[in-house]
Amino acid sequence: MKRQIYGVRAVQESLAAHPADLAVVYVTDPVPPGALRDLVVTARRAGVSLELRESAFLDALTRDGRHQGVVAIAAGDYPYADLESVLTGPSPGLVVALDEITDPHNVGAIVRSAVALGAQGVLTLKDRASPVTATVVRASAGATEHCRIARVTNLVRTLEELRARAYRIIGLAGEAQVVLSEVDLTGPVALVVGSEGRGLRRLVRETCDVLAKIPLAGPVASLNASVAAGVALYEVTRQRRDAASGV
Amino acid sequence: MKRQIYGVRAVQESLAAHPADLAVVYVTDPVPPGALRDLVVTARRAGVSLELRESAFLDALTRDGRHQGVVAIAAGDYPYADLESVLTGPSPGLVVALDEITDPHNVGAIVRSAVALGAQGVLTLKDRASPVTATVVRASAGATEHCRIARVTNLVRTLEELRARAYRIIGLAGEAQVVLSEVDLTGPVALVVGSEGRGLRRLVRETCDVLAKIPLAGPVASLNASVAAGVALYEVTRQRRDAASGV
Repeated sequence: MKRQIYGVRAVQESLAAHPADLAVVYVTDPVPPGALRDLVVTARRAGVSLELRESAFLDALTRDGRHQGVVAIAAGDYPYADLESVLTGPSPGLVVALDEITDPHNVGAIVRSAVALGAQGVLTLKDRASPVTATVVRASAGATEHCRIARVTNLVRTLEELRARAYRIIGLAGEAQVVLSEVDLTGPVALVVGSEGRGLRRLVRETCDVLAKIPLAGPVASLNASVAAGVALYEVTRQRRDAASGV
Repeated sequence: MKRQIYGVRAVQESLAAHPADLAVVYVTDPVPPGALRDLVVTARRAGVSLELRESAFLDALTRDGRHQGVVAIAAGDYPYADLESVLTGPSPGLVVALDEITDPHNVGAIVRSAVALGAQGVLTLKDRASPVTATVVRASAGATEHCRIARVTNLVRTLEELRARAYRIIGLAGEAQVVLSEVDLTGPVALVVGSEGRGLRRLVRETCDVLAKIPLAGPVASLNASVAAGVALYEVTRQRRDAASGV
């Protein structure tokens, strides 16, 4: 089964044959009468996750735009990238590494931010991490299909490899002394994000070149892991834009 | 029923009497043997949402710290604030206004970011918005209990009131021409966040002083609403810190 199925006929066939294999069906909003409206009814009856989106969203998702108002994404067999292809891309590099993030909503939202804010890819663990499930695909708003996601066995070793290739390894840690905006993020950067409960593991923390915090205040001062990752990615792009414009 | 119930005995009684009324029970991690371990078993059996957290989290949540390792938050009857009290606080003001955000996970995550990044409060609609449900409380990691959240009937009128009180009304809009980091956010600011599907409503958009975007690139370039709100709050704090340090 292909990852993306589009066009009315193809999606109808998938809905009839194996609805449980579909992570999400996107239909253009407003739904035009006729075949697409029937398809929406069929998808709802089959219990498939259905989302209405602007036509431009479907265009971007499918690249060639020949979707006829409907795109489905399959749930299984996510085509993980290898590390090498994650590290390939425009310079300076920007990669997000996830240390034991098991919540699929957080993984999906981070993948979405990584794609939108120009990271080349996402590294995650083979074990003790959420794989790219249907929930991750949905939470990413389809960004999984445009992201290079590589699974690594040993994050410490991978980060050391990145450092050997001139990446600066920045760990996000609430208790860090250094403020993120004071760290130079204009060169190649790997942002390392830990789980909400436990943060970064000790060995991962020790492998980072810098531990940096997003300054917070007040009671119960912590951010959702995907918000923290989004803020860090934003800070990278902000610094690079400033540097490019000579501010 | 009080919003926060803490101490082993009090939470045990709530679990026995009305478990369905509890949004979440936080227990210190690791769970010490004895009464707390029994309580965890009771909560799980009752189907109550249970989360293990560092003791410091419970301290911050309860302020006076006399929680004995367990804090429960009730689901119902959220004590909404009035607009006046949301606008009361340290100067320059910072308020987040939600325009028809119906997803409780997004509302919760935004409340959490608002508290952590120093906003005085959150404005949301009485209708066509998620009220503060148990899901919102959980998604906020308890930050709802430290946030002033006011419900307003007419967001346009409220924003006009804020403007009359020297707030600058900044609408987040992906299609805006102005880049958020180029907007002066050092004075009193209201950040207006729309729903993911439809963005800001036309009248709300027209009421804003500035529409600003977070610069994005690439395919399917959009952020989760709570990530966008978090980034905007971060940008406000970053500018104010820079201004305070005379950069």
